[in-house]
Amino acid sequence: MSASGLEGYHGEILRRLKSANAEIGSIIRITAKSREVLEGTLFPRSEYTDPNHIVLKLKNGYNIGIHYEKTEKIEVIGEGPKPHFTKPPSPPKSPGLPRVAIISTGGTIASRVDYRTGAVQPALTAADLASVVPELASVAEVEAHILFSELSENVTPAQWTTLAEDVAKRIGGGVDGVVVSQGTDTMHYTSAALSFALQDLPVPVMLVGAQRSSDRPSSDAASNLTGAVALAARADLAAVGVAMHQDMSDRYIVAHRGTRVRKCHTSRRDAFKSIGSNSLARYDLQTGQIEQFEDSTRRRNPRKLIVEPHFDHHAYLLKFHPGFNPEIITSAVSSGARGLVLEGTGLGHVSKYCYDAIKKALKEEVPVFMTSQTIWGRVDMNVYVTGRDLLNIGVTPLEDMISETALVKLMWVLGKTRSPERIRELMLQIVAGETTERSPIMEAV
Amino acid sequence: MSASGLEGYHGEILRRLKSANAEIGSIIRITAKSREVLEGTLFPRSEYTDPNHIVLKLKNGYNIGIHYEKTEKIEVIGEGPKPHFTKPPSPPKSPGLPRVAIISTGGTIASRVDYRTGAVQPALTAADLASVVPELASVAEVEAHILFSELSENVTPAQWTTLAEDVAKRIGGGVDGVVVSQGTDTMHYTSAALSFALQDLPVPVMLVGAQRSSDRPSSDAASNLTGAVALAARADLAAVGVAMHQDMSDRYIVAHRGTRVRKCHTSRRDAFKSIGSNSLARYDLQTGQIEQFEDSTRRRNPRKLIVEPHFDHHAYLLKFHPGFNPEIITSAVSSGARGLVLEGTGLGHVSKYCYDAIKKALKEEVPVFMTSQTIWGRVDMNVYVTGRDLLNIGVTPLEDMISETALVKLMWVLGKTRSPERIRELMLQIVAGETTERSPIMEAV
Repeated sequence: MSASGLEGYHGEILRRLKSANAEIGSIIRITAKSREVLEGTLFPRSEYTDPNHIVLKLKNGYNIGIHYEKTEKIEVIGEGPKPHFTKPPSPPKSPGLPRVAIISTGGTIASRVDYRTGAVQPALTAADLASVVPELASVAEVEAHILFSELSENVTPAQWTTLAEDVAKRIGGGVDGVVVSQGTDTMHYTSAALSFALQDLPVPVMLVGAQRSSDRPSSDAASNLTGAVALAARADLAAVGVAMHQDMSDRYIVAHRGTRVRKCHTSRRDAFKSIGSNSLARYDLQTGQIEQFEDSTRRRNPRKLIVEPHFDHHAYLLKFHPGFNPEIITSAVSSGARGLVLEGTGLGHVSKYCYDAIKKALKEEVPVFMTSQTIWGRVDMNVYVTGRDLLNIGVTPLEDMISETALVKLMWVLGKTRSPERIRELMLQIVAGETTERSPIMEAV
Repeated sequence: MSASGLEGYHGEILRRLKSANAEIGSIIRITAKSREVLEGTLFPRSEYTDPNHIVLKLKNGYNIGIHYEKTEKIEVIGEGPKPHFTKPPSPPKSPGLPRVAIISTGGTIASRVDYRTGAVQPALTAADLASVVPELASVAEVEAHILFSELSENVTPAQWTTLAEDVAKRIGGGVDGVVVSQGTDTMHYTSAALSFALQDLPVPVMLVGAQRSSDRPSSDAASNLTGAVALAARADLAAVGVAMHQDMSDRYIVAHRGTRVRKCHTSRRDAFKSIGSNSLARYDLQTGQIEQFEDSTRRRNPRKLIVEPHFDHHAYLLKFHPGFNPEIITSAVSSGARGLVLEGTGLGHVSKYCYDAIKKALKEEVPVFMTSQTIWGRVDMNVYVTGRDLLNIGVTPLEDMISETALVKLMWVLGKTRSPERIRELMLQIVAGETTERSPIMEAV
């Protein structure tokens, strides 16, 4: 693909860009009729973009489309590095490359626009995935297959079981790493599920998705997949991770620990963030190098792993708020809850109006756990009267475990035992880095 | 207070600090028996600190206590600026100072340690508040009173009404600004409530709290209160804000917009963050200057404001997750819900297994709204099939309104009307900056 000219632009819009002496790669300033001013690098228009839009890459890394009828003035204000679409230098494909299994489960990374509804639907096959990202051939010997095809909001705990078993099978088959492609909406729930279901992993298991579908010029599908496959193939890790853009630049694909990650933005490419812990490693899209941040879990040679893939979905996550009706707790119990995670406020609180409902749940042998809706930080129920009261009633605080991970862990623990005492014990036992330890010599004052 | 010596340290711990030639203000390195190394400025020990702890101020601004029995070695590695506890130069108190009403409702900022349980309980009177922070006298003419005394997790929507009416009364009395002290756990819910209940404000209303109680050396009570009073007294604003530490330094108290703020950490002083919008203003604790970031709402001279203080608590916030039982929606409706906010995933999704329960709720004239559990970003239900389906069913997306604000707004709207059509209309009408507008000429591609 040529890096100059005005590819993809036609008609009036082409004429206006030409008369401004703009080329693909020019840094241009657009003044809108509304007086708003936007500056960025002119990008080629792909066949999927609305033909009336000028595509700009902003400094913050976003691609945006600006309807040309809304523009008042277009000026070239500089020349940026021409966008290049060539592959980075890569070794020729050889049988010596690491073997990576890609398991496709659906989502944006494997989707295309449905012209009937105009919306995005899961569609591409696993083979398509590899074919639309030719870079993969130089990174690993890829074996792709479709396990199921589901938008991630529809993925169930039963499908986590299917997935965990399939990942274990691929690892048993001798691959050097596994990549699971999934929709991003619930990817952090799935990564937590795999973290608990697959213990003593010998190789990395990377979940990957895309925030923009692969037919959009700003799609992160190719770069995320390349990074995830590279990390699965070569990182000296043996853990479940989520591999996505680190920030708004296009430089790094970062692997977050499966139990310490959360989707924190509806649409940004760097929506996934490690919460209160370091990420595991990152892949540099420019140099192809991998940097590792954690040295806890290295690849191991014995390929045997422990597979405990069962989840009992009778676990509830209830978010407390002022005006919260304690009946929600009671109806959760009567509709079959076997364990509850309360997402409390601050250091781990709910109002005194909930005490009776919690006592009733505990009396019916439904264990109750506490996390915080603040997301960051650690619950500490020894500081305030409310926390002490809740501890006395029998609520179990979950340290700095994030709520979503706590819920998934509870489903996993319920899949192993029904004894309230054993459930509590297992919830507090660190299985996959889901809580971080307090520094033993420090104490907040 | 002298700035050197080894105040507050006694016995063995004093002996060890002396033999290391450490003084208050020295930068010291402590090597623990566990080999962990900590560096920071030596702070005086207050009578409330455990006598066996050495108090260090770390570079990141945190104060920590280290049990001396766990230390192996103590070395002085430099001299920092001596901690100073003198007041900044301040004008003498004069009747020309702005008048600020402080309304106390409880929480850490007005709390002390209960030696019976060892936990923190609300206790100080409003007059105490002013007396423990003598700086206030130079900032404003303060009139303090206690409205109620409640830990914030116990504050109810009915108490928001009491509070809104009291704030309106103080404004009617001619003050130049109002400060409301409250526990931080649900302070962002209260700030949203006041934002909707008090419209066309003539002066600023600042909520303030503390993350550490005032008897701890690292307490943020005094600095937060000083900042909040200064902002209420002098900022050229007419809006509800939350005034707390901007970051880990002790420099700025920032005022976040009441509808765009969230507690994002269990314990840090800078736990409150503006979500997807600028903060309103900030107060520089060093220079006493105020910087304003928004020019939308300036102080107004007509002191009449619109008071709509009623909230109907029959609103539910339900957080979706994989394995979510749709019966929760149904039992919310049968236990009297008059409106639901679903905290969906990603761009605003819940699983297809919830469709029937949502349809049933809507059929019973219970409007259903959608926000995202990602916290940041905007829901957009036109992108994926799931979003389209939910729109077709009749779910109403709430743009980039944060979930907690959406819930409070729904309670407020339900306090005004029971018509589902009118509820929807009011939920989408911007009342207090609760959603931000999309840039009209930009479109994500």
